[in-house]
Amino acid sequence: MHPAHPDLDALRTHGCVVTGGLGFIGSNLVHRLVAEGVAVRVVDAVVAEHGANPRNLDAIDTSSVEVLETDIGDARVAPLLRGVSHVFNLAGQVSHTASMTDPVRDLELNTITHARFLEMLRVENPEARVVHTSTRQVYGRVDRFPVDEHTPARPIDVNGVAKLAGEHLHMVYARAHRMSITSLRLTNVFGPRQRLTSDELGFLPVFVRKALQGESIELFGGGEQRRDCLYVDDVVDAILAASTPKALGAVYNVGHVRSHSLREIADELTSLAGTGSEVVTTPWPPVHRRIDIGSFETDSSAIRHDLGWEPATDLTTGLRNTIDFYREHPWYLSST
Amino acid sequence: MHPAHPDLDALRTHGCVVTGGLGFIGSNLVHRLVAEGVAVRVVDAVVAEHGANPRNLDAIDTSSVEVLETDIGDARVAPLLRGVSHVFNLAGQVSHTASMTDPVRDLELNTITHARFLEMLRVENPEARVVHTSTRQVYGRVDRFPVDEHTPARPIDVNGVAKLAGEHLHMVYARAHRMSITSLRLTNVFGPRQRLTSDELGFLPVFVRKALQGESIELFGGGEQRRDCLYVDDVVDAILAASTPKALGAVYNVGHVRSHSLREIADELTSLAGTGSEVVTTPWPPVHRRIDIGSFETDSSAIRHDLGWEPATDLTTGLRNTIDFYREHPWYLSST
Repeated sequence: MHPAHPDLDALRTHGCVVTGGLGFIGSNLVHRLVAEGVAVRVVDAVVAEHGANPRNLDAIDTSSVEVLETDIGDARVAPLLRGVSHVFNLAGQVSHTASMTDPVRDLELNTITHARFLEMLRVENPEARVVHTSTRQVYGRVDRFPVDEHTPARPIDVNGVAKLAGEHLHMVYARAHRMSITSLRLTNVFGPRQRLTSDELGFLPVFVRKALQGESIELFGGGEQRRDCLYVDDVVDAILAASTPKALGAVYNVGHVRSHSLREIADELTSLAGTGSEVVTTPWPPVHRRIDIGSFETDSSAIRHDLGWEPATDLTTGLRNTIDFYREHPWYLSST
Repeated sequence: MHPAHPDLDALRTHGCVVTGGLGFIGSNLVHRLVAEGVAVRVVDAVVAEHGANPRNLDAIDTSSVEVLETDIGDARVAPLLRGVSHVFNLAGQVSHTASMTDPVRDLELNTITHARFLEMLRVENPEARVVHTSTRQVYGRVDRFPVDEHTPARPIDVNGVAKLAGEHLHMVYARAHRMSITSLRLTNVFGPRQRLTSDELGFLPVFVRKALQGESIELFGGGEQRRDCLYVDDVVDAILAASTPKALGAVYNVGHVRSHSLREIADELTSLAGTGSEVVTTPWPPVHRRIDIGSFETDSSAIRHDLGWEPATDLTTGLRNTIDFYREHPWYLSST
């Protein structure tokens, strides 16, 4: 399930930085790295609405993890960047609706702080291998599927604009300053350590929460929109694969070969959870309709071809693991 | 030369806002509008390095122009937006090299202040017809010419990243908030009222200055890179055409059908100026090499098809007009 990672020697010797390491994907990456014997320096602004929670690192070997609670543009981050072999830059704001009510804040978090961070990295450690996480949301509404990296990016909300600008900044630094940077456009990700109590972090945590609590899952429209969802362990694999020297200076899609309709995903979840949740349909709320992208199916053949990564987890297995995790850690259902 | 502008009645009745109205393209637009009997409210941060100069509005009917000297994100801009029928949003930072030495400042000027401006516009006057000026530089380095709007945008310097994000923000507001906004990706523009004394505003003002002063024009490499240059009067025509109802919600390339090598442009200029300027070649300075895009040729067939715009001025005529203007206004050669 976890392909050998060619840079583990460098990582074990020099350690790494994980920004957003208290968040959903970041904390799963930190758990994996620590299990592999890697020392990790976490930088995280600990914004609960973005998914950060110090408890995501519960049960970890704390001697291997150092946490600096601040945003990634803070000058105090600079010394942490020195000497590490790898930087995993996962920090960011992920709410589409919040980005529309406060555009400037989203741009500051997903673009400006990343410019400050890249400048520090250029000065302190331009040799580090860097992986940045972007989102398939940068493509906006697309007609032809699956969507590969040659498709023009036309974001339809401020979060997509800001994430795309952050990604472009990483590629500018890769080319103009000859730094080793890869950016991954991630599809919808689910699994352990995702903040479940917010409705602003995508549909998957909402569906999981409602299935676990026996509440109705609402589908806007008929729920026919398709998504290729990815289990977080597969994303961690992709991030590690993208940190190898072969990956440098590229942008890769990271999604699943198999897509499902939202209705199928909701049905599967309620069936696995066995709580009697119902799946119901409801008309589109206007604020969601205007920034909804319809269906999306990712073409990830470039990263499969170049780096040998492909998802190892199907939807049913991933959802079953997810339900098991949250039943063992029920505080996620009430955490604010 | 100047096609009839279907919205002149609305403009004459309600007036308009021109941001960046003290700059190169902005001041040419203001001259045209005032000549057509339109009242103009100018918002301009008056940053000389960006090309702004109050003297660009010399000899204009001042009773028709109101100037607010501030950046477009300033809350004091809000009252100016009320009641006008059109907003021409031309403000921005244009230096590629400055964007690489101070990325955050470029992002603040070309992205953050535009987000603040769009929010004010959404609140104060969401019905206004808006034209935003973007740049062909958002495409970065392209292999296939001419370049149409379906080509993926891959900016190669921070200025391109920030301008593209600003453009995307305009399109998000157009779609999500149903505002009437067009964005124009302008090619290299030349003509009267361009700041000549800076080396940071593109090659054209540098070439013009050196040709007028009898200095050598340096071409990096062999000067074989091609550009389609546009005389500023043609850009003003495109901006006015893009402010009509037919143009709403679209991004258009605005360039010339005919391209020339930098060597041809330099030779034409020195010949027209008749000052004995020489054209010499010099090796690429590294900072320029890394953010140079090679050749570029614009496909503007979409705006020609949709709005009937096409350039009326060939290179020789445009350069001759330009030389005549600066000989009549020699202070441009020494203005700091």
